[in-house]
Amino acid sequence: MKTKTVYCLSGLLLGLLTACQPSDSNLKNQNVALQLQQKALNSTLGYDLVESLTVEVGPRLPGTDKDIQAVNWAVNKLQSLGFDKVYREPVQVPVWHRGQAHAAVTSPYTQSLVITALGGSVATPEEGITADIVRFNSLADLKQAAPESVEGKIVFIDHKTERHQDGHGYGKTAPGRSQGAAAAAQKGAVAIVIRSIGTDSDRLAHTGMMRYQEGIKPIPAAAMSNPDADLINNMLKRSDKVTLQLFLSPESQGTATSYNVIAEVTGSSKPEEIVLIGAHLDSWDEGTGAIDDGAGVGIVTAAAKLIQDLPQKPARTIRVVLYAAEEIGLVGGKAYAKAHQHELHNHYIAAESDFGAGRIYQLDWNVNEAAVNALQQLTVEMADIGVMPGNNEASGGPDVSMLPALGVPVASLRQDGRDYFDWHHTPNDTLDKIDPAALAQNVAAYAQFAWLMAQSEIILRPVAEKQSQ
Amino acid sequence: MKTKTVYCLSGLLLGLLTACQPSDSNLKNQNVALQLQQKALNSTLGYDLVESLTVEVGPRLPGTDKDIQAVNWAVNKLQSLGFDKVYREPVQVPVWHRGQAHAAVTSPYTQSLVITALGGSVATPEEGITADIVRFNSLADLKQAAPESVEGKIVFIDHKTERHQDGHGYGKTAPGRSQGAAAAAQKGAVAIVIRSIGTDSDRLAHTGMMRYQEGIKPIPAAAMSNPDADLINNMLKRSDKVTLQLFLSPESQGTATSYNVIAEVTGSSKPEEIVLIGAHLDSWDEGTGAIDDGAGVGIVTAAAKLIQDLPQKPARTIRVVLYAAEEIGLVGGKAYAKAHQHELHNHYIAAESDFGAGRIYQLDWNVNEAAVNALQQLTVEMADIGVMPGNNEASGGPDVSMLPALGVPVASLRQDGRDYFDWHHTPNDTLDKIDPAALAQNVAAYAQFAWLMAQSEIILRPVAEKQSQ
Repeated sequence: MKTKTVYCLSGLLLGLLTACQPSDSNLKNQNVALQLQQKALNSTLGYDLVESLTVEVGPRLPGTDKDIQAVNWAVNKLQSLGFDKVYREPVQVPVWHRGQAHAAVTSPYTQSLVITALGGSVATPEEGITADIVRFNSLADLKQAAPESVEGKIVFIDHKTERHQDGHGYGKTAPGRSQGAAAAAQKGAVAIVIRSIGTDSDRLAHTGMMRYQEGIKPIPAAAMSNPDADLINNMLKRSDKVTLQLFLSPESQGTATSYNVIAEVTGSSKPEEIVLIGAHLDSWDEGTGAIDDGAGVGIVTAAAKLIQDLPQKPARTIRVVLYAAEEIGLVGGKAYAKAHQHELHNHYIAAESDFGAGRIYQLDWNVNEAAVNALQQLTVEMADIGVMPGNNEASGGPDVSMLPALGVPVASLRQDGRDYFDWHHTPNDTLDKIDPAALAQNVAAYAQFAWLMAQSEIILRPVAEKQSQ
Repeated sequence: MKTKTVYCLSGLLLGLLTACQPSDSNLKNQNVALQLQQKALNSTLGYDLVESLTVEVGPRLPGTDKDIQAVNWAVNKLQSLGFDKVYREPVQVPVWHRGQAHAAVTSPYTQSLVITALGGSVATPEEGITADIVRFNSLADLKQAAPESVEGKIVFIDHKTERHQDGHGYGKTAPGRSQGAAAAAQKGAVAIVIRSIGTDSDRLAHTGMMRYQEGIKPIPAAAMSNPDADLINNMLKRSDKVTLQLFLSPESQGTATSYNVIAEVTGSSKPEEIVLIGAHLDSWDEGTGAIDDGAGVGIVTAAAKLIQDLPQKPARTIRVVLYAAEEIGLVGGKAYAKAHQHELHNHYIAAESDFGAGRIYQLDWNVNEAAVNALQQLTVEMADIGVMPGNNEASGGPDVSMLPALGVPVASLRQDGRDYFDWHHTPNDTLDKIDPAALAQNVAAYAQFAWLMAQSEIILRPVAEKQSQ
């Protein structure tokens, strides 16, 4: 445990020259936070939870039997961990079934491709679709194309995803997945097959959600693996005319009831005020949902459990929210914001863990600009585990990303995501991709963060006016 | 180009203190070899050939239409490269069709598994096989098991493949694949599913050949991906009774005619004497056969083409042999040895490239022990590209591995195989796994090797008596 002197030195080293005389209560809170940090680093609870979810439930597409199994798993697990409150809130979710996906080049050479349907895609006719490919470097290029070059063709968006620590490569290519079908259909395309939004070179295709636009014909949409996209390019080098045969049989199956599952450590002095730490319980169907987002479930649950087990209660309530149906459009996050609209003014801060299990390297905020320095000082000892002070540009995570516009401060505990898009939304999203030590570091950071936020006397509102990212 | 002094220094540095006065003809040959080395490093021919084969033909399972496409591709390509002779020799090959493969755990939890049939496997009944799993650490453990523990069960051999530069981890685990079904059936098992023989953690299963034993009932045999094997272990931690449902529909379809495709650079002074450099043309059906063994095809073909294009012909004939049906039991290699039995005494040396496209780091021999020092001196300048002198324990490669017992000297140009078993026999065996610069280094090494062997006056026979590896 550190003395006040050391703390001030840390502050100086970080160039934070103001307010270097923390209050005794801050010091006490920071000492508890350090205890939590050490306990978390020595605990396997976070990893055990991900293992349990991925082994005993596995993939859990919203609205399916597996999704309900996951909800039951979560309720039972949270209850058995002894949280003060455990409850669930119904969320109506659209149900989509993947079906089969096959594709083959039929000319100028014959080769099978590894593809998968994009989430929400319609099916091809039973006999499939056979058409020539028209290739674009990006969604932007497709949007600029002459309709006559696209009409009757299968659009191929060939946009490579860059590898970055903060994952911002995904932001550049994901719009091709979500909006490509509408843009292609508008110009008369019969289907779209994109290069997978992924940084790997595995022969596995990356799924993910796509959207149709009202008034534009829905066309089948799929992703091919990166090596298959390379193959198509090598064929296009040899012939302008590459013909693809595509078969997809996904099906939309109406709506079903899923649940946001919630657990609380009840606050002692300000129980109505809430520090929300979340993750999403649903997953895509092809892996076992380990990094997306079993990891987040394990991280925030284990962090809250460490606080639940402290001899002293936190001042504010710590609320763990395991969201439903994030993958298909932040459905649980939106439902939470609506169901809790009259309580949002009491949400002190919110953060979601939904970027795998890489180590957290930076803590960003989206709060009143005037609060940032104090927050950085309060959390300075998170640097012990590599979490450095960041900026005031946090989104908070997908399921809380709508909260800043509703006045709720958020934080982003930035994870090293260099590997994340190698496995994201593929069959490769399995337990072996998680480093238990890195996961424990995440638990440590969330436990420190949640405790310090529950105790903090810093005023975070109003949230700085800006676009949330 | 190096002077005699430098050459002797190189020899000294390598601790080769004898015969440090190479003949003028040796020096001349070594100078040509160095020219070949430099040309190879600056040429993309090897890579272009692999690209052409994997893009224009793709997977080429022995005896299938694709296999015949590959034979035609090879004949056309070798002819267009201008080799002195191009011909093909028929090989009768068994034909096996993969069909479908599905597996799921049905108890204590329900999860789908990623599996693939092992080559040569029989099918399950149409309704599949449902039985409990019995797990073994290795084939050896299965062989020691009490039959009552195995009877009526699905055997799971859970042997992890170690990662090594020389790939020797494969030698430890591959017998579980090839012999596991017979060992399991002998004790009454109804099927066998092994942990993939692979060093990766991708959700892709590794196929590969297996064999039944006469008099023992053939049972269906499959491999599951490494993450799926981990999943089964995590279930077995939770319950002794894990039930698997298995469906396989492979089919043996008799025999067909394939071909060893052969090209030659005719020797000038000793045309009847042969330096054989080979690779295999067939591949498994799930990838595009890039590292196994499109790379080898590109390497040896490009190396020979560089020699074909020299202003002076080699003394001996350089013979490129692209073998048929290696994957299903060295069928082309055995056929070549039989068809050429009366000519084997004229095979000066043979080597096959069949271990991917990693850089060559060592040159091993299987020759008269007395010849090794002289060979190491002759090839000393291969160290310029990282190829260091090795031992006298070479196998020569799968399709030439039977030749030493028939009196033919062989060499192994050892490739760095640390990554090889990540991709081997999976859909991930695609062009992107090949580093063009590493492939060019291979071409350089084979070109030097083949040229020096064609010119060599060293007597290599009789081959040292020992087990070929």
